Amino acid sequence: MKRLVLMRHGESTWNKLNVFTGWTDVPLSEQGVEEARKGGKTLKEHGFRPKLAYTSYLSRAIKTLWLALEEMDMMYIPEIKSWRLNEKHYGELQGLNKAETAAKFGNEQVLLWRRSFDVPPAPLTEDDPRNPRHDPRYADVDPSVLPLTESLKDVIERMMPLWENDIKPSLAKHGEILVSAHGNSLRALIMHLKNMSEEEIIAFNMPTGIPYVFEFDDDINLVKDYFLGDPEEIKKLMEAVANQGKAK
Amino acid sequence: MKRLVLMRHGESTWNKLNVFTGWTDVPLSEQGVEEARKGGKTLKEHGFRPKLAYTSYLSRAIKTLWLALEEMDMMYIPEIKSWRLNEKHYGELQGLNKAETAAKFGNEQVLLWRRSFDVPPAPLTEDDPRNPRHDPRYADVDPSVLPLTESLKDVIERMMPLWENDIKPSLAKHGEILVSAHGNSLRALIMHLKNMSEEEIIAFNMPTGIPYVFEFDDDINLVKDYFLGDPEEIKKLMEAVANQGKAK
Repeated sequence: MKRLVLMRHGESTWNKLNVFTGWTDVPLSEQGVEEARKGGKTLKEHGFRPKLAYTSYLSRAIKTLWLALEEMDMMYIPEIKSWRLNEKHYGELQGLNKAETAAKFGNEQVLLWRRSFDVPPAPLTEDDPRNPRHDPRYADVDPSVLPLTESLKDVIERMMPLWENDIKPSLAKHGEILVSAHGNSLRALIMHLKNMSEEEIIAFNMPTGIPYVFEFDDDINLVKDYFLGDPEEIKKLMEAVANQGKAK
Repeated sequence: MKRLVLMRHGESTWNKLNVFTGWTDVPLSEQGVEEARKGGKTLKEHGFRPKLAYTSYLSRAIKTLWLALEEMDMMYIPEIKSWRLNEKHYGELQGLNKAETAAKFGNEQVLLWRRSFDVPPAPLTEDDPRNPRHDPRYADVDPSVLPLTESLKDVIERMMPLWENDIKPSLAKHGEILVSAHGNSLRALIMHLKNMSEEEIIAFNMPTGIPYVFEFDDDINLVKDYFLGDPEEIKKLMEAVANQGKAK
């Protein structure tokens, strides 16, 4: 039996402000730190011993991984960081308050931008300081694949090569893998793993800080998937994510 | 110009108790956490932008790296963890109080064990629970190379392949590398880099939490080396390390 564990980072300082974050590199809030530690404790209690961990290039996912590994006494395992696990790029929306954006454009437009399968927000201009091609963090990435905005479909396209060429073979080889990433990069992976329709993935909300376990047979066919934690708490966390884009 | 930065982890909970630690996986103390953050801030202030980081399999060196990278806003760089950067294995001394050991065996014997070039402490027995061959952390390492005790000479022998085959080529390729490790694994590397005699390295004390910079030309010939920080503070830190093994 092979096990893949997905963890979505907890609250960041910008989640708290209800601002579109995307590729902006903001830290975890105190609550986000506690969520990460709790996720690590839960994994330890359930006897998880990942051999390898994946995370994004963004500090909030990396910190979530580090805090979880610290709680698990497994800081020594190899970590692979990839921009392909980054959050969806929100283009021109990055830095805008979600409630203000909703009041201006309407809940429907905001929900479309946040959750439509293939409609990306307005792109950054090439000379925008937020353009990742200007960021030394991405200096080792082919500039032609770096986005100025993304739909969920775009996220799937850039995430899949990492799954197929790296995570999936690692899972087959090592048997237990931990991935700490973001709402939309994880939804992209979950859509693929669970063979979801576009409608299903748009309606799916990934709770923060809760380990989501996928069990596979030796040929990496999905056998079952489940969250680790209190079902009531998980339901509340999923509803909180679903309500984020609504005008206040 | 190529730059290699060495950082020795700060105070651990067992340094505080003055106990031989070696491969025992103890966390940083609060002071050790502060030392690591300060080291990271210093590197940032001096414009260091490492492309890659190396650390050991032991939590206190990994945590030092993580805290430094967090202060530098560079959590995203690749990290390579290797048992070859671990602290010297102290064999049967691991877990014994340094002052008690000194009172029992005399300062001279303890200094010999701590600092002689080629006299290792008494080895662990094969069935000792502290034997690294029983630790899942080292499951991916060839058991025949895992030590039951080590002299500084032994540390050099197991550290050098990592330098020659990994760190040195990375330095040539990437130009700037950060290594977060331990008193003796760093002394082993420094002895090689500075072409020190056995007497010189035994007399050399690596201060904790202070970035030690080595500048090389493009053929990786050493041009100069220097500590980053206040010279008075560095002198005090070196003296504190030198005095650790004395009976109280």
